[in-house]
Amino acid sequence: MQRHIVPDIVNEQSLSLLSPGDTVSLAVEIMAERKIGAILVATEGKLAGIFTERDLLHRVVKPKRDPDATPLADVMTSNPDCIAPNDLALTALQKMSERGFRHLPVVTERGEIIGIVSIRDLYGAVLSELEEDVRQRDQLIFDTGYGGG
Amino acid sequence: MQRHIVPDIVNEQSLSLLSPGDTVSLAVEIMAERKIGAILVATEGKLAGIFTERDLLHRVVKPKRDPDATPLADVMTSNPDCIAPNDLALTALQKMSERGFRHLPVVTERGEIIGIVSIRDLYGAVLSELEEDVRQRDQLIFDTGYGGG
Repeated sequence: MQRHIVPDIVNEQSLSLLSPGDTVSLAVEIMAERKIGAILVATEGKLAGIFTERDLLHRVVKPKRDPDATPLADVMTSNPDCIAPNDLALTALQKMSERGFRHLPVVTERGEIIGIVSIRDLYGAVLSELEEDVRQRDQLIFDTGYGGG
Repeated sequence: MQRHIVPDIVNEQSLSLLSPGDTVSLAVEIMAERKIGAILVATEGKLAGIFTERDLLHRVVKPKRDPDATPLADVMTSNPDCIAPNDLALTALQKMSERGFRHLPVVTERGEIIGIVSIRDLYGAVLSELEEDVRQRDQLIFDTGYGGG
């Protein structure tokens, strides 16, 4: 069975949205508390950017910016690539692997923000999909072995 | 074909080792430059710990420690779980998934530090392995369809 982003990967709505004016410190608080590696930034319900653990390292700590005084607008990835709720897990995984992303926002055609998927969630889903494919084929081979030749 | 950690996953020796007394800032410099999410810490060639992007968020930025003044010894994960060079990719992947790790040091039985694997590298290898399994079975089913029953 081919997995889709919704409902197979993102099925629980536990979405934290921050504003571009919120500080890096606030984002870090929420990411630490919720044990997540990325957080979405939105303006009036429209996606504005994504801020990740990697951005924290490259754009805040490395250039020695003060997390208390740095707005997310300055260090987030603006207008990030997104995936759609009905995209296939495998398609999304390929997109992320090619571009080196670990997280992608999930946004509908109309711009409604649904959530965020991690490459890890996707790998898990695609792995299950492939394991199932192998099992089905083994079953077929087993059955054929008895019934056929 | 079942993939092993060495040589299938870790095959290039591009290992950076820091000391427990080195600062977070130095680790961040190297991680940013080499685009890696984790770095190993060693004392006299023996593995002492691992420091990751996640540790940076949880143990440095969140508690507002100064990266220039914080030694890795204070914020790394000491005596981390390791995997062996001849472990199977799938075994290592299960270990990491269960414990929520994204990186694991690769160390020989004698304590020699070989490198570091990311869950992403492992997923990639296991995915290829499964895709190959599916292809082989499809080939078998195809052949049997002609040759047998």
